[in-house]
Amino acid sequence: MSRFLHERYRSMEAYTPGEQPQDMEYIKLNTNESPYQPSPEVIAAVSHEEVEKLRLYPDPECKELRDALANRFGAKRENIFVSNGSDDILNFAFMAFAGLGGSVTFPEISYGFYQVFAELHGINFRAVPLKQDFSIDIAEYTKNDSMVVIANPNAPTGLMLSKDEVETILKSNPDHVVLIDEAYIDFGGTSCASLVERYDNLLVVQTFSKSRSLAGGRLGFAIANSEMIKDLEKIKYSTNPYSINRLTLLAGTAAIASDGYFMDKCKEIVETREYTKEELKKSGFTVTDSFANFLFVKKDGISGEEVYRKLRENGILVRHFTKESICDYNRVTVGTREQMETFLQVIRKICEV
Amino acid sequence: MSRFLHERYRSMEAYTPGEQPQDMEYIKLNTNESPYQPSPEVIAAVSHEEVEKLRLYPDPECKELRDALANRFGAKRENIFVSNGSDDILNFAFMAFAGLGGSVTFPEISYGFYQVFAELHGINFRAVPLKQDFSIDIAEYTKNDSMVVIANPNAPTGLMLSKDEVETILKSNPDHVVLIDEAYIDFGGTSCASLVERYDNLLVVQTFSKSRSLAGGRLGFAIANSEMIKDLEKIKYSTNPYSINRLTLLAGTAAIASDGYFMDKCKEIVETREYTKEELKKSGFTVTDSFANFLFVKKDGISGEEVYRKLRENGILVRHFTKESICDYNRVTVGTREQMETFLQVIRKICEV
Repeated sequence: MSRFLHERYRSMEAYTPGEQPQDMEYIKLNTNESPYQPSPEVIAAVSHEEVEKLRLYPDPECKELRDALANRFGAKRENIFVSNGSDDILNFAFMAFAGLGGSVTFPEISYGFYQVFAELHGINFRAVPLKQDFSIDIAEYTKNDSMVVIANPNAPTGLMLSKDEVETILKSNPDHVVLIDEAYIDFGGTSCASLVERYDNLLVVQTFSKSRSLAGGRLGFAIANSEMIKDLEKIKYSTNPYSINRLTLLAGTAAIASDGYFMDKCKEIVETREYTKEELKKSGFTVTDSFANFLFVKKDGISGEEVYRKLRENGILVRHFTKESICDYNRVTVGTREQMETFLQVIRKICEV
Repeated sequence: MSRFLHERYRSMEAYTPGEQPQDMEYIKLNTNESPYQPSPEVIAAVSHEEVEKLRLYPDPECKELRDALANRFGAKRENIFVSNGSDDILNFAFMAFAGLGGSVTFPEISYGFYQVFAELHGINFRAVPLKQDFSIDIAEYTKNDSMVVIANPNAPTGLMLSKDEVETILKSNPDHVVLIDEAYIDFGGTSCASLVERYDNLLVVQTFSKSRSLAGGRLGFAIANSEMIKDLEKIKYSTNPYSINRLTLLAGTAAIASDGYFMDKCKEIVETREYTKEELKKSGFTVTDSFANFLFVKKDGISGEEVYRKLRENGILVRHFTKESICDYNRVTVGTREQMETFLQVIRKICEV
């Protein structure tokens, strides 16, 4: 820390991304990436001719990509916001709709970044514990006088609120933004995007990083009432107007055009998830009913940390969290069927089942 | 604007990027892009094999690119920060080193984004007028109790402070960060990057958008004392840890490896600039002594707005600013020799010389 850093940021703790170790080749099940490469259309879109055009700035309004997304979601361009990964959008939303001195409510066990954004921007936050079974207690979100942020499906549990439950929260909290973070929506969940027409306080955020195999491209989008989209644009135009590079704009547009490819891959991931879950259950593991591209797994009699460490020693990376209420568990990204067979073999051996 | 937008941002005005009209093909001399495509090495680096890997997150630490930059500047990895365009870095620096309730001093005529960052983050700012000849009045920057931000060369004038003058400011202001924005340094200017070893309050910011033909890739970097770099990383890890996409990391690393190519192109641009300047002077135009890849041009007897408009009607885009002290001028990006011959022909006709 330099002696120049503003006092607001001195004691703040930043987010810790999942590890990317370089010491050996791992089966990488720790950061919820897709095991499948992007569609042939995406790969063709990033052509040499387009790389040659990198001397030119990208379109700051991202019109083509927004039109493709609007078309996909039955919305209009002015209902769509895009930026450099969904983290970028979450950051803008915390700034714009809670902001300094404002307040926000989110689940205590959820995407760890929510608390970081709140601390960064001087936002008061209430982190609501999950119920014993890891589900979200709706009643806690219908009595708020604050912005509400919910990952749906939630991470790292994979559990979902129904569209009706989200609607209950939206109705109970009309004077604050309700942000539904749908990073993992394409693996069997039901999106709330269509509710945007009826609720001007709903902001739905999605990403190309998981179902669309573009984690390395950095692309997220939001769907909301056009006035809320204008607010997000104002923040973007006041920080980094050209926030998405030319090649990612092309890749994103091609990904939407080849939606069938990604939906097929999502289906495969869901099938592999269900298979892996059943196998784990047969072997006595506890596994949540995940609607995401990961499983949340524990075994009685062995600590989550030990399982994490032994998997790692055997060349398999998963994500372990140290928070007490979930430290018995590990979050395991669903890879290919072959990768999951290896994972099952190794974890059974580690846990002696 | 939605009813949910935080009051801090309600009256704020965002930055207006240069226009990117789609109605016809223009000779585009309005946003200081390079007229030359990236090096063959950059184009080769963004291969199909790498596009296939977009399913994976990028390295959040950007180690390879930072090592390449460190090597290029005779520094260490811990002295180098990279992010999604230099605007991203400027934004973080305003947050971290001035911040809410802090203060910053910059030239009144300079990159228009400085004032936007200050307003966004609730920073008090002093915008110091330039001298009559558009040069920066050093004396105004040696009596500050605030962060100082200077574009060097300055935009849109193209004029430079010497390294000695920057050192005078650094010495006079040891308890605040002095940010030297060297976006246009590679067109004949002398960088202050080597002063980082001696001044822990110096932050030098550069970009790949101009000299390295990568405006569409979005890549900026900063050089500073390692503690200041850690502060910038803390802000990045608290907003968007994976801020640079995989393909841009590769393109940037390849650009540094092919430094000779870019320096040759910079030399060509400087030659074209000097030629264009002399031709304009011969025809009675006033032109500043630019060290950047643009010229700042006026002609007595015709308004800057009229020149801008008539150039546009003739298929040539330049940048006009409405601020009173510079509204007689236009900023003209230096394109290829051929483009500048066309520009000269047209502007002479417009101004009847």
